[in-house]
Amino acid sequence: MTNNLNTIHVDMDLENRVVLNVGGTRFETYKTILKKIPATRLSRLTEALVNYDPATNEYFFDRHPGVFSQILNYYRTGKLHYPINVCGPLFEEELEFWGLDSNQVEPCCWKTYTKHRATEETLATLDGLNLDVDRTSKHDLMIKFGIDEHRALMDSKMNYFKRLQPIIWQLFEEPRSSKPATVIASIQITMIILSVVILWLGTYTETNVHSININKEIIKSNNVTENMFETFRIMDADFYNIYLVILEYISVSWFIVDMSVRFIVAPNKRAFLFSTDNIIDFLATSWSVIDIFIRLYVKSILLDSLKVIRVLRFFRLLSYHSGLKVIISSLKTSAPVLQLLVFFIIVSSTLYGAMIFYAERLTTDDADNNIFISIPEAFWYAIVSLTTIGYGDFSPKTSLGRLFGGACAVTGVLMVGLPMTIVVEIFSNFFNHLRARSKLPKQRRRILPV
Amino acid sequence: MTNNLNTIHVDMDLENRVVLNVGGTRFETYKTILKKIPATRLSRLTEALVNYDPATNEYFFDRHPGVFSQILNYYRTGKLHYPINVCGPLFEEELEFWGLDSNQVEPCCWKTYTKHRATEETLATLDGLNLDVDRTSKHDLMIKFGIDEHRALMDSKMNYFKRLQPIIWQLFEEPRSSKPATVIASIQITMIILSVVILWLGTYTETNVHSININKEIIKSNNVTENMFETFRIMDADFYNIYLVILEYISVSWFIVDMSVRFIVAPNKRAFLFSTDNIIDFLATSWSVIDIFIRLYVKSILLDSLKVIRVLRFFRLLSYHSGLKVIISSLKTSAPVLQLLVFFIIVSSTLYGAMIFYAERLTTDDADNNIFISIPEAFWYAIVSLTTIGYGDFSPKTSLGRLFGGACAVTGVLMVGLPMTIVVEIFSNFFNHLRARSKLPKQRRRILPV
Amino acid sequence: MTNNLNTIHVDMDLENRVVLNVGGTRFETYKTILKKIPATRLSRLTEALVNYDPATNEYFFDRHPGVFSQILNYYRTGKLHYPINVCGPLFEEELEFWGLDSNQVEPCCWKTYTKHRATEETLATLDGLNLDVDRTSKHDLMIKFGIDEHRALMDSKMNYFKRLQPIIWQLFEEPRSSKPATVIASIQITMIILSVVILWLGTYTETNVHSININKEIIKSNNVTENMFETFRIMDADFYNIYLVILEYISVSWFIVDMSVRFIVAPNKRAFLFSTDNIIDFLATSWSVIDIFIRLYVKSILLDSLKVIRVLRFFRLLSYHSGLKVIISSLKTSAPVLQLLVFFIIVSSTLYGAMIFYAERLTTDDADNNIFISIPEAFWYAIVSLTTIGYGDFSPKTSLGRLFGGACAVTGVLMVGLPMTIVVEIFSNFFNHLRARSKLPKQRRRILPV
Amino acid sequence: MTNNLNTIHVDMDLENRVVLNVGGTRFETYKTILKKIPATRLSRLTEALVNYDPATNEYFFDRHPGVFSQILNYYRTGKLHYPINVCGPLFEEELEFWGLDSNQVEPCCWKTYTKHRATEETLATLDGLNLDVDRTSKHDLMIKFGIDEHRALMDSKMNYFKRLQPIIWQLFEEPRSSKPATVIASIQITMIILSVVILWLGTYTETNVHSININKEIIKSNNVTENMFETFRIMDADFYNIYLVILEYISVSWFIVDMSVRFIVAPNKRAFLFSTDNIIDFLATSWSVIDIFIRLYVKSILLDSLKVIRVLRFFRLLSYHSGLKVIISSLKTSAPVLQLLVFFIIVSSTLYGAMIFYAERLTTDDADNNIFISIPEAFWYAIVSLTTIGYGDFSPKTSLGRLFGGACAVTGVLMVGLPMTIVVEIFSNFFNHLRARSKLPKQRRRILPV
Ligand SMILES: [K+]
Ligand SMILES: [K+]
Repeated sequence: MTNNLNTIHVDMDLENRVVLNVGGTRFETYKTILKKIPATRLSRLTEALVNYDPATNEYFFDRHPGVFSQILNYYRTGKLHYPINVCGPLFEEELEFWGLDSNQVEPCCWKTYTKHRATEETLATLDGLNLDVDRTSKHDLMIKFGIDEHRALMDSKMNYFKRLQPIIWQLFEEPRSSKPATVIASIQITMIILSVVILWLGTYTETNVHSININKEIIKSNNVTENMFETFRIMDADFYNIYLVILEYISVSWFIVDMSVRFIVAPNKRAFLFSTDNIIDFLATSWSVIDIFIRLYVKSILLDSLKVIRVLRFFRLLSYHSGLKVIISSLKTSAPVLQLLVFFIIVSSTLYGAMIFYAERLTTDDADNNIFISIPEAFWYAIVSLTTIGYGDFSPKTSLGRLFGGACAVTGVLMVGLPMTIVVEIFSNFFNHLRARSKLPKQRRRILPV
Repeated sequence: MTNNLNTIHVDMDLENRVVLNVGGTRFETYKTILKKIPATRLSRLTEALVNYDPATNEYFFDRHPGVFSQILNYYRTGKLHYPINVCGPLFEEELEFWGLDSNQVEPCCWKTYTKHRATEETLATLDGLNLDVDRTSKHDLMIKFGIDEHRALMDSKMNYFKRLQPIIWQLFEEPRSSKPATVIASIQITMIILSVVILWLGTYTETNVHSININKEIIKSNNVTENMFETFRIMDADFYNIYLVILEYISVSWFIVDMSVRFIVAPNKRAFLFSTDNIIDFLATSWSVIDIFIRLYVKSILLDSLKVIRVLRFFRLLSYHSGLKVIISSLKTSAPVLQLLVFFIIVSSTLYGAMIFYAERLTTDDADNNIFISIPEAFWYAIVSLTTIGYGDFSPKTSLGRLFGGACAVTGVLMVGLPMTIVVEIFSNFFNHLRARSKLPKQRRRILPV
Repeated sequence: MTNNLNTIHVDMDLENRVVLNVGGTRFETYKTILKKIPATRLSRLTEALVNYDPATNEYFFDRHPGVFSQILNYYRTGKLHYPINVCGPLFEEELEFWGLDSNQVEPCCWKTYTKHRATEETLATLDGLNLDVDRTSKHDLMIKFGIDEHRALMDSKMNYFKRLQPIIWQLFEEPRSSKPATVIASIQITMIILSVVILWLGTYTETNVHSININKEIIKSNNVTENMFETFRIMDADFYNIYLVILEYISVSWFIVDMSVRFIVAPNKRAFLFSTDNIIDFLATSWSVIDIFIRLYVKSILLDSLKVIRVLRFFRLLSYHSGLKVIISSLKTSAPVLQLLVFFIIVSSTLYGAMIFYAERLTTDDADNNIFISIPEAFWYAIVSLTTIGYGDFSPKTSLGRLFGGACAVTGVLMVGLPMTIVVEIFSNFFNHLRARSKLPKQRRRILPV
Repeated sequence: MTNNLNTIHVDMDLENRVVLNVGGTRFETYKTILKKIPATRLSRLTEALVNYDPATNEYFFDRHPGVFSQILNYYRTGKLHYPINVCGPLFEEELEFWGLDSNQVEPCCWKTYTKHRATEETLATLDGLNLDVDRTSKHDLMIKFGIDEHRALMDSKMNYFKRLQPIIWQLFEEPRSSKPATVIASIQITMIILSVVILWLGTYTETNVHSININKEIIKSNNVTENMFETFRIMDADFYNIYLVILEYISVSWFIVDMSVRFIVAPNKRAFLFSTDNIIDFLATSWSVIDIFIRLYVKSILLDSLKVIRVLRFFRLLSYHSGLKVIISSLKTSAPVLQLLVFFIIVSSTLYGAMIFYAERLTTDDADNNIFISIPEAFWYAIVSLTTIGYGDFSPKTSLGRLFGGACAVTGVLMVGLPMTIVVEIFSNFFNHLRARSKLPKQRRRILPV
C-alpha cells in the first residue's frame, strides 16, 4: 500500500516536472519552482509557446547552458549568486534575457560582481586619455577644421591659409604625426628644460654677486658652495651672465613664436585660450618678457620669485608621456582617498603636535632648552614624522615627548600606508589594463546580424 | 570463459549502479559508494521514495547540478573539496540539503572556503557603521522617542516639547537629514577648527610675551620665528590678544549651547552621558570655561597644558566622514596585529637599544663623546630607526654601534612591513566591499514562497 | 558519389568512436586518440573490461566528470592544462586514477598548479608550530614521561616524584593548561620585564654617579637628562640603588628557582640542556649571579656590557605569543630572500659608499670640509640612505656626491622594496591560512571505507 | 487555430535546429545563428561532412565541450568572452580549431586573457637566464669548442691544448660543474672581496697620514675616528701598510692569472673581449697594475679616485647568485616604469625645489638665515624629501616653505609608491614563476603522434 501511495506521488511529481533544453543541455525542475519569481520569462512558460516541443515534452532556449544552471538555482533557492567562471557582461546579458534583475545578486557576490563594472569604467577612462592616437586621420582633421573635403579637392582657389592651417596644426600639436612634428616637439621639450636650467643657473650667479657683499662667515657651513662661487668669480661674472641672457632671449623668442603659431592655427580659439596648458604658457612667457624689461630698472626678491611660474611649464611635458597621463588619471580617480589622506595627516599632526608641544613644555625644567617654541612648529614636527621623513630639525627631548613622538611615528606608518593601498590598487588596475590593451588589436571585426 | 565471467561481473556492476538526476543532469555511481557516508540523504536512498522514477530507474533531485558533481566526488574519494567557481553560501546551502557538514572541507580549501565567511563579517561590520543612513525615517524616529505614531496624529494637545524633540534631535545629530541640519553641522565643524586654531595662535602670543623677557641669543637657531615675533610686537600684543579672546568666547558659547540642546533632546540621557564623544566634549568645554576664570588669577604651564583636551574634539570630525569611519573600523578589526606590531617594536627597541648602548660605551675611548648617556636614549634611537624616521639626534659613532644600527634598520623595514601587510589587507578588503556596496541598490525585491 | 564516399567515411568514423560514461556524463572521442598516451588506463581499454556495457556500447568510470573533460583534452591536444575551478589535490587524485603523471602539466599552469603544494607546505609548517595545543592530554603526558598508565593506577606506592613530575612540568611549561600555570607564566613574564627594566634604570644611576665627576658642560646638549639627574641626586643615590639591588636579587632568585624546577621535572634532560631558550636563560642567570659578586671588587665597562645577555631573555616572550611564532616562522621560510636583501644592501652600500667617498674628495677643494674621512663612513652613509632612514650625520656636500646620493636613495627604495614583496607575500600567506584554520573545527569525522 | 499556427512554428523551429555533439556533450542552436560569423568551421556545416551522423542527426566534433559552450555563445550574442576556468593557451587552441580569431575577445576580458601571454613572456625570460644549467653536457661542450667528438676519440695525437681547453674553460666559467670549479669560484669571490676591503683599509691609512699633518681641531666632531687613528699611529703606519700592499699584490696577481687563463681558453675571443664583465675586469686589473707603479712617483686625488673602478668588480658577484639575476631581470623588464619614476622625481624636485627656494627667500626677513642659497640646493632638498630620507641638512624654516615642504613629503609618498607597485608586481610575478618552476621536473615525457 505504501508502494501504491508512492506511485501516485510519483505521478504527481512527474506531472509537475518540467524539462528545459538550454542550448542542448537539459535542466529539470518543478513547474511551481518557476512560478516563484513572477513576471519573468520562466514564470510565464506555456505549452503554446513556439519553443515547446511536444514530442520530447521540453522547452528549447538557445542560450548559454552554464549560466542557466546558476539562474535556475535562483528560482530554487531564492538567492542569485554570481557564477565566478563567466565574465560579468555575459552574465548580465543572460539575466536580461531571462527577465531577471542583475541588482538581485547576493551581498556575498557584490565584490566579484561589481569588478567588471569597475573594469568598464577603467577602460572608458583609458579610452578618454587618447593614448594611442598617433595621428588624426585626414578625414577627422577636415571635420575638425570645418572644411568640406569634396569641395576642398575641387576648389583649387581655396584660401591658402585654410589649406595650410590643418597641416601646421598637426605639426605643432601631434608630436607623433610626422618626422617634422617630432622635431618641433623635441625643440619644445628642449626649450622648456633650457628655460628651467637658466632659472637654476641664474640663482647661482645672483647669490654669487650677493655673496661677495655679505659676510663670508655666514656661509661657513656651506664651504662647498663657496668654493664653487670662487670658480665663478674667476671667470668674469658678467661674461657668464651674458651667455645666460642670450640663452634666455632665445628660449623666450621660441615660446612667443610657438604660442603665436599655435594660436593662429587653432581651430577653436576659445578652447585654446581657456586650456590650462596655454594659460600657464602665456603667463610664463609674458612674465619672461616683462621681467627682461623690469630687471633693468628694479631689483626685488618678489619680482624674482614670480619667475617660478616658468617651472610650471614642466607640466606641459606630461602631455608627451603616456605613462604620466595614466598616473595622473589614476590620481584623479583616487581623489577622495587622497583627500582622506591629507585630512588624516592634518588631523593627526594637530593632535600629536599639540600633545608633544605641551609634553615638552611641561616636563622640561629649563624653558630655554625647549625647541618647540609654538604649536605650529610642533605641527611641522608631526608632519615630518608622520611621513617618516624626520629631518631632525625638531625632535622631542623629554621622555613624555618621546612617548608621543613614538606613537606619532607608528601612527604615521599606518596612516600613510592605509590610504596608499587604495591609491596603489587603483593605479595598478589602470596600469594592468593599459598593458592588456596594448597587447590587443585596435580594430576588431564585427559579426553579421541574423 | 573469461568472457562469461566478465558478463556476470557486468551484470553485478549494472545491478549496483544508480542514476541520480540532479536538476536535469544525470550522475551515475555505485550504490555502495553512497553508503560510505552514513546518515546522509544519499546513503538512505530507497526505491520507495517519491523522487524515484521506476520508468527511467533514476532518482530526481531538484538541486544545482554543478555543485553536485563535487558532492558526489566526496562520496567517491572521501575528500570534500570546495568548488572554486561557486559562491560559498550557495555551496553551504547545497551541503545542508544533502545532509553533509561544511566543516568536512579539506584543509587545502580552507582558505578559499573561509573567504566568504570573512566577507559576511565584513559586510556585517559595514552595515553596523550606518554609513548610508542619511535620515532616520519618521516611523523609526517615533519609535526611538517612544511616541505612538497614531496617537500623536490625533492628540493635537500633545506636549509641545515632545513634538519638537525628534525634529531638533534630527537637526543636531543627523547632518545629512535636511538643509538646516547641514548648516548646523558646518557651524559645528567650523567651531571645532576655530577652537584649535585659537589654541595654536595662543601659543604664538604667549611665546612672544615670553620671548621679550628671555635672552635673545638663545633662539639664535630660529631667527625665522624671531622675525615673526618682531612683526607681532609691532602690532600691539594686547590688541591681538583681544581678538583671540573674543573668538574663544564665541566658540565656547557655541559648545555650551550645542551640548545643552543635544542633551535636552536626547532620547536616552544615560547613553548620551556615557558616549565617548560627549565626554570629550564636556571635558573640553567645561575646561574652557574654568580656564577663562582661572587665567585671571593663576598662570601655570600645567593648567595651560590641559587646554590640549580641546584638540581631542577633532575626533568628533570623524563622525562626519564615512571614509574615516571605515579606516577606524578596519583598524579595530586589525587590533591584534597592531598589538603585535607595538609589542614587536618595544621588544626590538629594547634589544637593539641595549646592544647599541653597550657597543658605543665599550668601543669609544673617550666617554665624553658617547651621546648615548643611558639605555632609554638608546631605546629612543632604536624606535626612531625601526620606524625609518631617523631624526639624527642620536646616531652610533663606533663601528660596532653602526653594525647594530644597520641591523636595526633592516629589522625595522621588515618588522614594520610584515604586520602592516595584514592591516593593509584588512583595510583594502573593507574599502573594496564598501565600493561594491555603493554600486548596488539598497532595497531588493524578494521572491515569492512556493 | 561524394555522398557515397562520405557514408563510408561516417561508418569508419562511427566504428572508431568510443563513448566514455564518466560519473554519468558521456564523453565521446576516437579510439586512436586514446592510444596517444601509452600505458595509461584509457589506452588499454578493451570490451572485455568489467566496466564495458555492451547494451549502450560505453565504458563506465565512477569518477569526477568535470575533471575528466580536462583529461580527455590532454589525449586530444597532447597538452595537460590545470582546471582552475577544482582544487589541486582533487586533480592529482584523478590524474593518478587515469594513470597520468601530474608533472606533465603545461608551463603556463605551473604557477596555479604548484599553489596547492605551497598551501600544503604552509599548513604543515603551521601544524608544526603547535599553536592551538592548549594542554597535552593525560594520555600523551603519560607517554611523554614513560609511565604505564594502567600500572600507575594500580601501583599506589609509585614513586612520589614520578607522580608529581608531569603535573609540575605542565605547570611550568604549558601556560594555558590550567589557572595556576597561567599565574606562573605571568610571574615569569613579569620577572623577565623587571630584569630588563632594572638594567635600564641601572644605566641611569651609573651615569648619574659618573656625571657628578665629569664636566657638566659636556652634556650641555642634553639638559633634559641632566635635570632628571638632579632629581636623582636629591633623593639619596645609594638609597635608590638599594631598591634596585633588592629587585634584582628577587628576579635572580626567581630565575634560579624556575630553571632548577624545570630542569628537575624535564622528561628529557639532554633536550632541555640543548634548547636555545634554556641556554640563554642559563647564561643570563649565571652571569647575574657572578655579576653580583664581581661588582663588589671590580668595576669595568666590559663586565657591565655583558649584562646585555639579560635582554636576550626577551626572546622567551616569543613563546607566549602565537602571532610572533607565525612571524618568526615566515621569516625562516623567507630566509633565502632575506639573505638576498642583506647581500644586496652590502654590495650596494660598498658601491655607493666608494663612489660618494671619491666624488666628495675629488670635487671638494678644501679637504677639511669633507666629512667622509674614510670609506667605512661613506659605507655607513650608504646603508643609512638605502634603508631611507637618513640620520643626516653624513650627507654629501658636492654636486657629484649628491648625484650619487640621489641614485643611492632611488636604488634604496627599489632594493628594499623588491625582496620585501616576497617576504610580505609569504607572511600574508601564513597569516591568512592561520586565520582560515582558526575558523574551522579541529576534529573532523571520517567517512566509512567501502 | 493558435495551436495549429504554433505547431507550424515548432516545425519550422525544429527544422532550423542543429545538434552539435562536442566531445560527447550535445549543444543545440539554430542554423541561422551559426551563419552569423562567416568563414568559420561552424558557418560552413553541411550534411555532406564526414562528422555528420544521419542516424542521430548531429555533427560530431572531438573537441573540449567546456570551452565550446563559450564559443557557441559568441555566435549567439556576438561577444566573445574568455572562460575564466580554463588556461589561455587551451582556449586559443580551441579558437583556432573553430576558425575564430582570439583577438575578438571582449575588452572586459582583455586583462585576464592577456595574463597567459605575460606568463609565457616571463617563462621565456626565466629560461633565458640559464638559472638551472649546472654543467654544460660533454656533447654541447664539444660543439662549443668546435671539436668533432668522434674524431677526437680516435685521433689520440690531437693537440694537447685543444683537449685541455674545454676542461679548463669549464673549471673557470661554470662554478657548479665540479668540485675544483667551485674552489676556483670561491677563490675568485674571496679575491674580489679582498680587493675591495684593501681599498677600504687604504683610505683609513691615507687619512691617517693626512690627519697627522692637518689641524686636529678640524675633526673635533669625529673623535671616534680620531681615537682609531691613534691606535694606528701606535703600530707603525708603514708596517701596517706593508701588509696591505702584500695583500694587494696577491689579489692583483690572481686577477692577472685568472683573466689570462680565461682569455686563452675562451672559445670565442671576440665575445670574450666585448663582454661587460671582462671589460670591467680588465680596466680594474690594468689600473691596479698602473697604480702600483704610478704611486711611487705621483700622489694625486684624481688618480686615487680611479681605484673606485675596482669596486665595479662587485657586479661579477651577481653571476654567482640566481636570485640576483632574477632581480636584475625584473628590473630590466620594468625599465619603462623606472624611467617614469626617475623622470617623475626630477620633474617634482625641480617644481618643489624652485617653489621652496623662492618661498624661503620671500618670507625670510634676514637673508643670512636662508640656508637655501641656490635652486640646486633646494632641488637636493626636494629629492631627499621625495624619497622620504630627509637628512635634515636642509629644511624649510618659514611657514610658506614648510607648507610646500609638507606637500613635497606627501607627493613623495605617492610618487615613489605608485611606480614601485608595478615594479613590485613584475618582480613578484617573476619570483613566483621561478618558485613554481623549481617545483616541477625539467624533462617531460611527450605523447605519441596519432
Ligand atoms: K627618514
Ligand atoms: K631622517
